[in-house]
Amino acid sequence: MGSQRHVVAITIGDPAGVGPEIVLRALSNIAIYDHVIPLVVGSLSVLRRVGEVMGDSRPLINVRGRDSLRGIPETVEVYEVPIQGQEELIPGRVQRVGGLAADAYIRTACELARRGEVDAIVTAPISKESLRLAGIRGIGHTELLAEYLESPDPLTVFITGKMWVFFLSRHLSLRKAIDYITEERLLGMIRRVDKVMKRMGFRSPRIGVAALNPHASDGGQFGDEEAKVLAPAIKQACREGIRVVGPVGADSIFYQALEGWYDCVISLYHDQGHIAAKTRDFFGTVTATLGLPVLRTSVDHGTAFDIAWKGKANATSMETAILKAAELLNRIE
Amino acid sequence: MGSQRHVVAITIGDPAGVGPEIVLRALSNIAIYDHVIPLVVGSLSVLRRVGEVMGDSRPLINVRGRDSLRGIPETVEVYEVPIQGQEELIPGRVQRVGGLAADAYIRTACELARRGEVDAIVTAPISKESLRLAGIRGIGHTELLAEYLESPDPLTVFITGKMWVFFLSRHLSLRKAIDYITEERLLGMIRRVDKVMKRMGFRSPRIGVAALNPHASDGGQFGDEEAKVLAPAIKQACREGIRVVGPVGADSIFYQALEGWYDCVISLYHDQGHIAAKTRDFFGTVTATLGLPVLRTSVDHGTAFDIAWKGKANATSMETAILKAAELLNRIE
Repeated sequence: MGSQRHVVAITIGDPAGVGPEIVLRALSNIAIYDHVIPLVVGSLSVLRRVGEVMGDSRPLINVRGRDSLRGIPETVEVYEVPIQGQEELIPGRVQRVGGLAADAYIRTACELARRGEVDAIVTAPISKESLRLAGIRGIGHTELLAEYLESPDPLTVFITGKMWVFFLSRHLSLRKAIDYITEERLLGMIRRVDKVMKRMGFRSPRIGVAALNPHASDGGQFGDEEAKVLAPAIKQACREGIRVVGPVGADSIFYQALEGWYDCVISLYHDQGHIAAKTRDFFGTVTATLGLPVLRTSVDHGTAFDIAWKGKANATSMETAILKAAELLNRIE
Repeated sequence: MGSQRHVVAITIGDPAGVGPEIVLRALSNIAIYDHVIPLVVGSLSVLRRVGEVMGDSRPLINVRGRDSLRGIPETVEVYEVPIQGQEELIPGRVQRVGGLAADAYIRTACELARRGEVDAIVTAPISKESLRLAGIRGIGHTELLAEYLESPDPLTVFITGKMWVFFLSRHLSLRKAIDYITEERLLGMIRRVDKVMKRMGFRSPRIGVAALNPHASDGGQFGDEEAKVLAPAIKQACREGIRVVGPVGADSIFYQALEGWYDCVISLYHDQGHIAAKTRDFFGTVTATLGLPVLRTSVDHGTAFDIAWKGKANATSMETAILKAAELLNRIE
């Protein structure tokens, strides 16, 4: 391994949340260092205070770029991002300075990626409310990354074991999500998924499309979207040489993906894919953002303000997100 | 154990499907006999032919009731149901005589239950197409059981480990399933679920209601059904003394149920609960029908005509269904 390891920027997210703690705890797992060289993006003083609560006495070292990194578990290497008013930060609360800091960490990680100082970004949770108080308009990580990386077309995928799940739509009411499903949109999504999967090292990705209605409408008995909208889009994509099948009943397709029938599944609405991933493995599900100039993975939970800075947050998701970034980087090469 | 074991009728389902094989194979697991005394309801000649393919040489014994049963794994005890034209049965095909037989086995199992000869019914898969050719109007097991047991109000529950899932609606298109959700219907369902869970031995069942929209609409950002329809029904049920919570985001509630937060979950549409159960454990999911005068459990897969009578069907679901019937019978006492 040694010099073959990739450098991964790890943002601490909203500093008032569990982010700093789960980053420190994940980096106390020495197995991480077999796979990546971590560069924490955040605040030395916040990490120091959280480390004290956790009884983590490792030295924190301010590092400015790839060439200075040692990548050893005995120290925590941090790219310090100064934030005005940070000394007023109150743990466990929605607040303006938390939003300002979270945004600055993401922006800094993107700059490091653009300068080639890091190979991927792993993000800790942020608070939409704190971002709003800080006057940040992006409603989430994906939007902020798209803006700072000047990349208009990010694509979110949930990864749970062998199961990769893309989403035709996400934050829409279920009624609006159904209205959103058109032949054109689904065809566009199949094409995009095919493209990013190829970039992720799948030579000829096998894509499964979930059905909308129970038992894929059972020949039109329960709804007509399968015949009128989904099948035509899938047929057209096949004609274009894409390996796509469906619509497949949503109560079977995710199990089949876990069994290796497809390289990925396109789900038609938020809960369809989320229920599958999170019921299967709540803490083992990683979110990755593809279609950006730099790979990004993330934990899929929130800031958990109620237990922030108390030394009891579960770092399993953060460890999984870091290791998944390493795995995906190897796949791209 | 010994005389404490319950007698369970096990129908072989459509005789042209995998039913006879999975019943024989499940009953070759001697652990089954620690928990139940099985009485197979079906055809001796079909079971003999399928047993030959499987290399299962156990004697088949025609038994007419509880008192003659020995309940030992060295023999297979069968309640023979004569079917006209049965000698013409062709394995692996949709056909009239298959539907006639499947229906007769269910009717017989219900009669045995009414006469007190069996304590529960476990069913193997049937073919709707074969039933239709046989002129049977009921569209599935649940409807047929309701008719033959003269019980108008059966309630289906999916059981996957600790997770019990009820359904507000099932075989409706997703659009119609959304329209079907009203305050009155949900309240009625909560009351029914509370009642059957109490009959199943839960003194004060904790019921979780899944949300319809992503993140339970996140305070009304994505849809208003949570505030306008779901919350009022849940509130009213609470006022009546029912322990019910929700609406809870559907990507969390099933995981929480697996963790023991609720005794059961009410899902609002078919795929919501089906995706959770089947992605979590495809073969370990059992369907139970509650609210009938007799308990019924079932495998949740189909007749699999393509592999019928070939000696290669997976009997895991059938074993689980039989063992779950025993577990639930103990719970009722």
